[in-house]
Amino acid sequence: MTSPVLEAIYKRRSIREFTDAEISIEQLHEIIKAGMWAPSGMNNQPWRFVIIQDPGIKEELALQTHYGQMVRGANALIAVYLSKEHMYDAVKDHQSAGACIQNMLLAAEALQLGAVWLGQILKNKSEVNRILGLQDNFDLMAVVVLGHPLHHNQKSRRKEISELLLKQL
Amino acid sequence: MTSPVLEAIYKRRSIREFTDAEISIEQLHEIIKAGMWAPSGMNNQPWRFVIIQDPGIKEELALQTHYGQMVRGANALIAVYLSKEHMYDAVKDHQSAGACIQNMLLAAEALQLGAVWLGQILKNKSEVNRILGLQDNFDLMAVVVLGHPLHHNQKSRRKEISELLLKQL
Repeated sequence: MTSPVLEAIYKRRSIREFTDAEISIEQLHEIIKAGMWAPSGMNNQPWRFVIIQDPGIKEELALQTHYGQMVRGANALIAVYLSKEHMYDAVKDHQSAGACIQNMLLAAEALQLGAVWLGQILKNKSEVNRILGLQDNFDLMAVVVLGHPLHHNQKSRRKEISELLLKQL
Repeated sequence: MTSPVLEAIYKRRSIREFTDAEISIEQLHEIIKAGMWAPSGMNNQPWRFVIIQDPGIKEELALQTHYGQMVRGANALIAVYLSKEHMYDAVKDHQSAGACIQNMLLAAEALQLGAVWLGQILKNKSEVNRILGLQDNFDLMAVVVLGHPLHHNQKSRRKEISELLLKQL
């Protein structure tokens, strides 16, 4: 069984090294639009987004993670937030954020861009909010790091389905 | 901008009414494989799956949710779990589960199947574990309800991007 969608899901890899080429604002909006079309419980759409391309702000964010070099080398970042006042259930809203981010990664792939889901920066999420000028009513979920891929050498592995499928009833 | 992947993301709808047609085990494994290829923090792959097609078990599960009629009418269910011993960070693992489920929904769409993400059953997750014969080391994240679509009349709406994009820096 194959289809362009299944292929994208299987072939997408985290891209951490980028060329200097620009990402257009139209592409960034398209990636956010893909995220917005994720499903959410009660269709509450709790996600909010910040686009960052300013070099100074990128540098400040780079200092908040072990993956600073990757952040510096990226042409654009999209910080994905949950709006606390629009949340209704922490577990389900975190799941929705994950669905939203996955759509964004697949959209980046569809636009021939490279992307990586940066979660490690969450340890400094208050600091990130300060840098971006946001209050604590916005809870950082991840930063999607974006650029034109320098290469496609990235490998990844998954367990066997037999290890993950607990029962077939 | 368009691509088969973006189209799938934008056009996918929750399908809640199904024909009696069967879903093959190969299709169910393909949907799980799509879920497995979601990214996870540290590639910890905390997700686990249970396939349910047995009518008796489906009926028991139907009684655990307000959406029992939908569960009864579905040809197959895939319960998505997190293995607690493979988790490393609750928020990030819940996000990964969401990314996994979103891949499964997109895969179902790619296979011309209909699917809906059932979260409302989580209020009875201990009971679901009992029905499926699982211990508490597996934490139910959602049940993906699957069948051949009876129709494609389902509509959905999203906010405007201008309402969700907080800043562009």
